[in-house]
Amino acid sequence: MSSLNGTEADFEDTAHASDLAAWLETLPRDAALERLARLPLPRRADAFGYLRIATQRDLARLLPAADLAAIVVEMDADDRADLFKALSAGERQRILPMLPPEDRDDIRRLSAHDEGTAGAIMTSDFVTLDPAMTAADAIAALRLSAADAETIYRSYVLDGDGRLVGSVRLHRLILAAEDAPVAAIMESVPVSVGPLTDQEEVARAIARYDILAIPVVETDGRLVGIVTHDDAADALQAETTEDFQRISTVLPFTQSLRDAGIGMLYSRRIVWLALLVFGNLFSGAGIAFFEETILAYVSLVFFLPLLIDSSGNAGSQSATLMVRALATGDVALRDWRALILRELAVAAALGATMAAVVAPLGAWRGGPDIALVVAATMMVVVVIGSLVGMSLPFLLSRLRLDPATASGPLVTTISDAVGVMVYFSVATAVLAP
Amino acid sequence: MSSLNGTEADFEDTAHASDLAAWLETLPRDAALERLARLPLPRRADAFGYLRIATQRDLARLLPAADLAAIVVEMDADDRADLFKALSAGERQRILPMLPPEDRDDIRRLSAHDEGTAGAIMTSDFVTLDPAMTAADAIAALRLSAADAETIYRSYVLDGDGRLVGSVRLHRLILAAEDAPVAAIMESVPVSVGPLTDQEEVARAIARYDILAIPVVETDGRLVGIVTHDDAADALQAETTEDFQRISTVLPFTQSLRDAGIGMLYSRRIVWLALLVFGNLFSGAGIAFFEETILAYVSLVFFLPLLIDSSGNAGSQSATLMVRALATGDVALRDWRALILRELAVAAALGATMAAVVAPLGAWRGGPDIALVVAATMMVVVVIGSLVGMSLPFLLSRLRLDPATASGPLVTTISDAVGVMVYFSVATAVLAP
Repeated sequence: MSSLNGTEADFEDTAHASDLAAWLETLPRDAALERLARLPLPRRADAFGYLRIATQRDLARLLPAADLAAIVVEMDADDRADLFKALSAGERQRILPMLPPEDRDDIRRLSAHDEGTAGAIMTSDFVTLDPAMTAADAIAALRLSAADAETIYRSYVLDGDGRLVGSVRLHRLILAAEDAPVAAIMESVPVSVGPLTDQEEVARAIARYDILAIPVVETDGRLVGIVTHDDAADALQAETTEDFQRISTVLPFTQSLRDAGIGMLYSRRIVWLALLVFGNLFSGAGIAFFEETILAYVSLVFFLPLLIDSSGNAGSQSATLMVRALATGDVALRDWRALILRELAVAAALGATMAAVVAPLGAWRGGPDIALVVAATMMVVVVIGSLVGMSLPFLLSRLRLDPATASGPLVTTISDAVGVMVYFSVATAVLAP
Repeated sequence: MSSLNGTEADFEDTAHASDLAAWLETLPRDAALERLARLPLPRRADAFGYLRIATQRDLARLLPAADLAAIVVEMDADDRADLFKALSAGERQRILPMLPPEDRDDIRRLSAHDEGTAGAIMTSDFVTLDPAMTAADAIAALRLSAADAETIYRSYVLDGDGRLVGSVRLHRLILAAEDAPVAAIMESVPVSVGPLTDQEEVARAIARYDILAIPVVETDGRLVGIVTHDDAADALQAETTEDFQRISTVLPFTQSLRDAGIGMLYSRRIVWLALLVFGNLFSGAGIAFFEETILAYVSLVFFLPLLIDSSGNAGSQSATLMVRALATGDVALRDWRALILRELAVAAALGATMAAVVAPLGAWRGGPDIALVVAATMMVVVVIGSLVGMSLPFLLSRLRLDPATASGPLVTTISDAVGVMVYFSVATAVLAP
């Protein structure tokens, strides 16, 4: 990646607001405030909006109320709603009275929505048109509002009751005859979401239709906001990171891993680690049950880690593939029946190959009987691990839990317990005198 | 999500091309061809471009050369380059002669780039302007080329040698005086990439700067293409899916999981499953070495699955967090030194807690000596697992391998072998008569 303009000297004047914010993050808070104060207001608000929320909150506390209010008025509607969610009630009260009434209402409305929904990531920065306007009127309206609009490339056409009836692309307006009514050049809106729609679904719709923004409408058809492609992409990235965390039994956190504290990381990781201890008690109990077999054939223990790991590995392969396919919409809940037979076939082939790999090892370490026990167990545990791994994400999803939740380790723990029972049962049956 | 327009009757006329393509996918190939033939050409090309590559290839083989050429000319430049990559040499030769020379060159150029680079996902559909043009000329130029442009909202300004000197946003052109020269209203380009830049980095730059497209320039400054936000997002989604696959030891594949065949899934999964068998031999050898200790204290075996799994779970927590942080750019290679001390502190806290959890279990099953052995081993293996899990993605990344490659299972296998040695060494030391 290379920068085509700007020397270091004029960095503060010419850098992209995103780069400026990244640089401000590296400064002590008071130095950052001083640098911010030197910027012209629109640029100051822009850079402020790109700062991390924690930094925004720190600086907001240090700024005089009037200075903060000036920045807040200039900020993008969705960014300032996020800032307000991060402030305490007292801090909000410090600046709300200094804002124009319409900004106040807008902030209250946007910051009222639950995390993870379209409502929480939508913005009110968009342009609306009347169907009876002419193309020339519409362009004039766009000129007036352009500075405020998150995207001016598509305007939304509302009827008298605020219901969304269509949309107009900027280039259609430009190409149209000046006196053409908006109603004649508008397009129908192929897709919209509700304020409660899950943000993952919003992002999938934007990707599917290759659109810059998706309108958010109430059930009565009134347009209440739009979600832009960049905010949807940010939300999707955050959800994907959460899936990675869940799959490895880390409780979700949104902070940067680089800045995360020891106590926070400890608390996110210990819960599942400790919970899974109790799952493993079943494996231990199984082994205790077969104490005599172990004492008679101690070489069985040599293969325990191998069998346990192979079953867990096969299971987490299946689980991870399913978790991802469910998250991207590649697979839906109703596909379970169709996929389970294929999984069985794949798992049988995997199990047979693994059995062929370990049989010689068993023969070498413990003779033909041990080889038979180890190979038969391998076949069974790989199949069971795969079936559990494939089905668990569906089950979690069905129970309205996130399918990624601890899928890998839950699968490992379940298939370990089953594996131990299978192993020593087979061993007792084959080796019994 | 709700659709605001269209009844089933006029689906073929009004549906979004993406929905139309999804429906065509469900039909037999010949029925799909027949439906396609009924659509007006621009819409036919649009829907064709949304089909999966495998479907496009199948239909391309069935279509008469002239019909296929007509679609190819209309398709987006990046989509048709992807189609050409999927066709055999003979099939390419069947239609290339029927294309206009400029489309032929364009396809050859775009399809020459390696998968995973900016060059492979860039498009040549963009509008270029001359710095000396007036705003009115520029708008006229845009009108002529708009239908072909992947995005007309930003045009690129090139000097006489084709070097990128700036860009102009559509709304700036509209707001400018008609006779204002493009040079006066253009903005500098904050960021660009080269044709060989990794597609993940391209997507990160687009997200960071909230831009619709990023220009791709050669080292001499010539503009060769742009990557649009939607194509970058698709590429990023594919890379993330690959990371999920790698982390669970599935060799990457790009096909839909729903449509994947048994043979393909088997071949993607067996390689690492079988390879990891040999890793587990170390654990088995470790156990064999301590045969006497096991025979004297068989209750040690009860805790083997628990200790092995806890070490593996702690390790895969660390590994997954790092893999994701490296992929999103949250953490860079140089951060390893700074993070290892924090990881040590977190792991020590986790290990101490886990030791406290298992000590009573050890005491219950085998008395105070076993409790001491199990608790001490738990402490050590959780710390070792975490450090290995955290460091391995950095090491793989340093070796220019994908950090996600087998991080989880590699970590599990390594920490299993170490864990077994630690366990029975501690046991022999504590329990020796």
